[in-house]
Amino acid sequence: MSEYIEHDRERVSVGIVEKKHFTFAAPPNAMELESGARLGPVTIAYETYGSLAPDRRNAVLVLHALSGDSHVAGYYTPADEKPGWWDCMVGPGKGIDTATYFVVCANVIGSCMGSTGPSSPNPATGRAYGLDFPVVTIGDMVAAQKALIDHLGIEKLLCVVGGSIGGMQVLEWSVRYPQTVFSAIPLATTMRHSALAIAFNEVARQSIMADPHWDHGNYYGGEKPRLGLAVARMIAHITYLSDESMRLKFGRRLQDKSDFSFNFDADFQVESYLRYQGTKFVERFDANSFLYITKAADYFDLGKQHGDGSAVKACSKAQAKFLVISFTSDWLYPTYQARNIVNALKKSGRDVSFCEIEAEWGHDAFLIPGERLKTLIHGFLERVHDEFAA
Amino acid sequence: MSEYIEHDRERVSVGIVEKKHFTFAAPPNAMELESGARLGPVTIAYETYGSLAPDRRNAVLVLHALSGDSHVAGYYTPADEKPGWWDCMVGPGKGIDTATYFVVCANVIGSCMGSTGPSSPNPATGRAYGLDFPVVTIGDMVAAQKALIDHLGIEKLLCVVGGSIGGMQVLEWSVRYPQTVFSAIPLATTMRHSALAIAFNEVARQSIMADPHWDHGNYYGGEKPRLGLAVARMIAHITYLSDESMRLKFGRRLQDKSDFSFNFDADFQVESYLRYQGTKFVERFDANSFLYITKAADYFDLGKQHGDGSAVKACSKAQAKFLVISFTSDWLYPTYQARNIVNALKKSGRDVSFCEIEAEWGHDAFLIPGERLKTLIHGFLERVHDEFAA
Repeated sequence: MSEYIEHDRERVSVGIVEKKHFTFAAPPNAMELESGARLGPVTIAYETYGSLAPDRRNAVLVLHALSGDSHVAGYYTPADEKPGWWDCMVGPGKGIDTATYFVVCANVIGSCMGSTGPSSPNPATGRAYGLDFPVVTIGDMVAAQKALIDHLGIEKLLCVVGGSIGGMQVLEWSVRYPQTVFSAIPLATTMRHSALAIAFNEVARQSIMADPHWDHGNYYGGEKPRLGLAVARMIAHITYLSDESMRLKFGRRLQDKSDFSFNFDADFQVESYLRYQGTKFVERFDANSFLYITKAADYFDLGKQHGDGSAVKACSKAQAKFLVISFTSDWLYPTYQARNIVNALKKSGRDVSFCEIEAEWGHDAFLIPGERLKTLIHGFLERVHDEFAA
Repeated sequence: MSEYIEHDRERVSVGIVEKKHFTFAAPPNAMELESGARLGPVTIAYETYGSLAPDRRNAVLVLHALSGDSHVAGYYTPADEKPGWWDCMVGPGKGIDTATYFVVCANVIGSCMGSTGPSSPNPATGRAYGLDFPVVTIGDMVAAQKALIDHLGIEKLLCVVGGSIGGMQVLEWSVRYPQTVFSAIPLATTMRHSALAIAFNEVARQSIMADPHWDHGNYYGGEKPRLGLAVARMIAHITYLSDESMRLKFGRRLQDKSDFSFNFDADFQVESYLRYQGTKFVERFDANSFLYITKAADYFDLGKQHGDGSAVKACSKAQAKFLVISFTSDWLYPTYQARNIVNALKKSGRDVSFCEIEAEWGHDAFLIPGERLKTLIHGFLERVHDEFAA
C-alpha cells in the first residue's frame, strides 16, 4: 500500500490502497458456525490504512454494513471515480485519523466483495455454493474477523466501530471477545431487529426469490435475478432515507418533464432515483449475498445469543468503553433502540457515552460527512487512545 | 337489499346486502378523463345501506382505499366469513348509523371489484383493456361517482367520508363539486403524496412489472403475476402498520418452531404473516388495478389540480364543513400532513374541526374498531345532519 496524501477531489484521502486476502480454516479444520454447519476454507478480503504502532495499541477495526466492503477509504487506482465508502471519516486528519491509527476493514463472510460467500466456489463441487452456502450469523462474521486480527498480530483492538449491521458486529465483538476490545462505537444500530426491520428484509428477500432467474440460488454462470434484486435494493434504500430527507432531496419534482406522462414511466425524480439505485446495485452485488446478510441481521439478538435472553446479562460480558450514537431521523433503528443498548450497558456497569445526533438524512446519516459525528468519534478515539497507552 | 339486523358474530350488522351496477358514458358520449383520454362505457359497482329520507338529506358517501370495494358493511350471504371492510363503522347504531343515514359506497374506476378498470373488456377489442386502459386520476374517480350520485337522485350529500386514498377522494369531492357536499370527513390522508409515499408505491409497481407473467399488462386469460403482486402487497402492507403495532403483534416471535431454521423459510411470525397477506391478496386483486390506483394516488395534488399550485386557493373552492382526523402512529400520512389540510382549509375560511387520535396501529388505525373514532364521526354526523335539515 503506497499511502500518499492526495488533495484531488478537494479532500485529503489515504490515497491508493490495495485489497489483500487472508485464508484460513482449510478442511479438516473448517470453521464451525453457530448453526453447527462447517465452513472452510474461509477467505477474508481486507484493507489496512496507516501503520501499526510498535506497541500495537492503535488498531481500529471498521465494520461495514449490508452492501459494504473492505474498501473503507482511498482509491484502488488514481482513475477511480469514487473513494471507499467511509472516506469522509477515515483518512489523515479525519475522524478516524490514519496518521495516528492503524485501520483495518474486512469484508464480512457471506458477502461477495472478496470474502467467502455464496458466490464463492464450493470445494465439494468446484461450482459456486449458491444455497449450499451455510447460513452465517453476525457471530460467525465476527469470529472470522477475529482470525484475521490474530493473523495481523493484534492482541487488543483500540476500537471497533461500525454502523447499521456493522454496529451489530461492534456489539458482538465487545461481548464475544471482551479481552480483545478496548473500546467500541456502535452507530445507528440495534441489539436486535424489530418486527418492522425484519419485515422489510423479508419482503426484499421475497422479491429476489420471486425472480425466476434466481432459480433457488443456482444462477451463477447464467442470467442473474436482476429485476428481483433491483426491487430488493429499492426497498432497502427507502429504509435508509427519511420522510424529511426525501422531501428535501426530491419532493414532488418531475423527472425531465413538465407534466405527468399518464403512463407507468418514472414521472417523479424519486422514482427515477430509485430505479437508478436498483439498476446500479445489481452490477456490483450478488443476490444470494443479499439474502444471507439480511438473514444474519434478522437473526442477530445480543441478549438471546449471549445472555439467555437478557441484554443486560449479555452486556455484562463486555469490558470495552462505549460510545453509542443514533440519529434523530433514523426510523430503521430509531433512537429508542440505541437507548436500549445504552441502558443495558449502564445496568451492567459499563463505561458508556451516548449521543443522538440531529440529522435529517435518516439511517444513512452515519455515512454522510458531518462535523458533529467526525468530532465525536475523533474525540472519543483520542481519549481511549490515551487511556489504552496509560 | 333485505336489511335485517343480525346479531351473529357478536355484533349488529346491516345484514345481507347486494352489489348493484350503474353504467353510463356509453360511446360516443364517453367520459373525458383528466389526461384528455376518453373512457366509455363506464360501469360503477355500488352498494347502498339504509333508506334515503324523503327530503334526500341523509345521504353519506363512503369512499374506499386502494384495495377496497363497494362492500363497506354487511354480508352477501349468511355463509360469508367476513362482513364488508368497514363493518365496524357502518351499520345500525354504529358511527355511521344506517338507521338514520342512507349510505352509498361505490368501487372506484380503475379497480377490479365490479367497476370499469384494466381487467374489464375493452369495447374496441372485446378483450381486457390491460395497459390500454387510460390512466385515471382521483378526479376521474370522483367524476364517475358524481354520475352515480346524480343517478340516485341525490342533489347534495350530507357527508363524504373516507380514509387514505378514500380521503383523497373526499378532498377532491369537496373542491370539485362544492354544491354537492354539505360536509366532509377526510381520514388518515393527505393533499398530496410525499416523496416517501411515492417511493413505496413505485417500488411496489416495479415489483409487479418485474414479474415476467405481468407481460406488459397482457396476462388476462394466462398466468397472473402472482409473485410480483404478492411482494407489492407486502410492501404496501408494511406501510399500513407501525413499528409499535408490529412489535405488539409479532415482536420477534418465531413461527411454529423453537429456534431458527438456518435457511430461507419464514422463521419469524411477521414473515409468515406477510407471506400470507401477499398470497391472499393475489386471489382477490388485479395487478394492473394496483398499478392504476397507486398511480392515481401519486398524481393526486389538490393544490396543483385546483389551485394553480396553492392548497389554500384549492380549498377556498370548497363549501363543506370538515372533520379532519389523523392517527399518531400513521407514518404513511403523518399528522403534519393532516395539519397541512387543516391549515389550508382554515386559511380559506372553512369550518373545520381536527382531531389526532392516539393509536398504535399505524395507517390502518382508521379501519380498526375504536370508540374514539366512532364517537367523533357519530357526533359530527349528528351535528351536520341537524344543520343540513335546518
